[in-house]
Amino acid sequence: MSVAPISAADAKRPLFVGVDVGGTGIKFGIVDDAGRTLGKFRIDTHEDRGPADAVDRMRQAIDGQVADLGVPAGDVVAIGLGTPGTMDIPRGMIVTPPNLPHWRHFPIRDALSRACGRPVSFANDANAAAYGEFWVGSGRGSRSMIMLTLGTGVGGGIIVDGMSIDGINSFGSECGHIIIDSRDDARLCVWGGGRGELEAYASASAVTQRTRELLDAGRTSSLRERCRHEDVSPLMVAEEANRNDALALEVIDETARYLGIGIVTLVHTIDPGMVVLGGAMDFGGHSAAAGRRFLESVRREFRRRAFDVVVDTTRIDFASLGGDAGYIGAAGIAQAAWHKSNG
Amino acid sequence: MSVAPISAADAKRPLFVGVDVGGTGIKFGIVDDAGRTLGKFRIDTHEDRGPADAVDRMRQAIDGQVADLGVPAGDVVAIGLGTPGTMDIPRGMIVTPPNLPHWRHFPIRDALSRACGRPVSFANDANAAAYGEFWVGSGRGSRSMIMLTLGTGVGGGIIVDGMSIDGINSFGSECGHIIIDSRDDARLCVWGGGRGELEAYASASAVTQRTRELLDAGRTSSLRERCRHEDVSPLMVAEEANRNDALALEVIDETARYLGIGIVTLVHTIDPGMVVLGGAMDFGGHSAAAGRRFLESVRREFRRRAFDVVVDTTRIDFASLGGDAGYIGAAGIAQAAWHKSNG
Repeated sequence: MSVAPISAADAKRPLFVGVDVGGTGIKFGIVDDAGRTLGKFRIDTHEDRGPADAVDRMRQAIDGQVADLGVPAGDVVAIGLGTPGTMDIPRGMIVTPPNLPHWRHFPIRDALSRACGRPVSFANDANAAAYGEFWVGSGRGSRSMIMLTLGTGVGGGIIVDGMSIDGINSFGSECGHIIIDSRDDARLCVWGGGRGELEAYASASAVTQRTRELLDAGRTSSLRERCRHEDVSPLMVAEEANRNDALALEVIDETARYLGIGIVTLVHTIDPGMVVLGGAMDFGGHSAAAGRRFLESVRREFRRRAFDVVVDTTRIDFASLGGDAGYIGAAGIAQAAWHKSNG
Repeated sequence: MSVAPISAADAKRPLFVGVDVGGTGIKFGIVDDAGRTLGKFRIDTHEDRGPADAVDRMRQAIDGQVADLGVPAGDVVAIGLGTPGTMDIPRGMIVTPPNLPHWRHFPIRDALSRACGRPVSFANDANAAAYGEFWVGSGRGSRSMIMLTLGTGVGGGIIVDGMSIDGINSFGSECGHIIIDSRDDARLCVWGGGRGELEAYASASAVTQRTRELLDAGRTSSLRERCRHEDVSPLMVAEEANRNDALALEVIDETARYLGIGIVTLVHTIDPGMVVLGGAMDFGGHSAAAGRRFLESVRREFRRRAFDVVVDTTRIDFASLGGDAGYIGAAGIAQAAWHKSNG
């Protein structure tokens, strides 16, 4: 799942650059005023070389891509930049992101803006991805939206009337850290966070952990044989679920149940009308029986528990931009800011 | 706890009317541009006489109060109106509020505006109360804020950058209906709502229910004797807690624990920097040992579970406007709208 580029001739001016910084790679895209991608590219983060080196390579990459596409540099009016938290959005600072240890307390927004000679809008990477889906993905046409990104952990992005919920500490929309089980012996996510949080029940790590627990308890499953040769993963669970393995189906249903509960909490808080499920842990999404079952189970739990007034008016669906959501959303945030200051 | 009126001579123009509609009474206040109350009054709702009758009496009451205060009618430029949900805020409609059964599907905003010849801003009553605390109460000076109103149920109001989270179905900020316990046998609130929702753990109904359960289980308590003569209530629990009754203290601590858990979820979602606890079920608030213990226990649970980045920057405190928050906040919403359209 990824977006197909359009030609520079078809693009609606002005153009924007979206940048999505991760721990291992930095994704870029040149995006037009309608949210369509003209070209996308990727460089290694080389986190250990520090942020100044990366900013320099980001500038080179952007300039090179603009030249390659044959668009006048002046057509590209602003840059959007998403980075992982923790961060200080109003000050444009990276603070202490776990996966960028050498980039701490770096004023990346202004550094990139100086290097590129263009204004830079700064956002949390999960909120940027949510904005991408909101702008031109599964949330297109919505006024508000919540996105949950299911991966190793559970990320979140909340948009209300077109505005990201960043929070006063740039810690808003951390939907993976809502508490769905208040017991003292509730689950802990394997890679941190508090007890009973959604992430401990609806992430890839949680799926792997629960599958192992059920196998350790002696349950019969086609997964048992496969586990001798490879590590349990949500992909493996999806494959065996597609072959109707009962344990795999149970893991998917239980994950969906907890995710549905988390969505009830978020919808009763925000009432956005649209919930988008992104990230790699989608059990194959719309194109697989396991993915469709997962989505239907999430919807069922939501319908079972949510207030009538939101049940019929809240859509829940998979994301549609895949790994392109981050840079497209970053570009979209820059686009909105540019139009705001340029009438 | 209630606000003291200022004199009309001291008031900063323009003036606004705030109206807070409840099932039994309608509260009003004339509020100045700085959020200070010049005069407040109350009429019976007489719900069964229908909304048109009430609108007529509201107009009379407002005109009478303006005349009594001796302020020129032209100084009062706009009205803010809060009503209980369900509602349709963009259309200015009351929909199907449980405590106003004869007012269903009534276009109250426009009816009141026509009757009074002034623009009317329309809001959910809980969001209006939150806006009051945000404007001139415990949240004064905050950019964002969450208010939880602890009464028979648990109401909520969320304000982000000065804007109420109304939701696309006017069902946003329903913080009493976040799920903190996902078990199938989790508590149900005695007066409705879904299983495991915050309201079933942190409302007056929940306190009464849990106290009865502990007494029924044979626990020793000074509450046992009192229960022979009167119904258990949070006030009674507070009084016995002030006398160090162990069971009463346990009920307060447990209620605080669940409330703290709910606040972690809300703060990880919104990151507002400020959480205000309003409503009658405050165990006496700052002026009682039981209330102070309750607040400290809420804060302790929050600190224990919330992410470091929000622990030090999130204030949790009792509300300060008491029953005046609703009309003051409604007036404040009208004030903000008026200034927006009048530069």
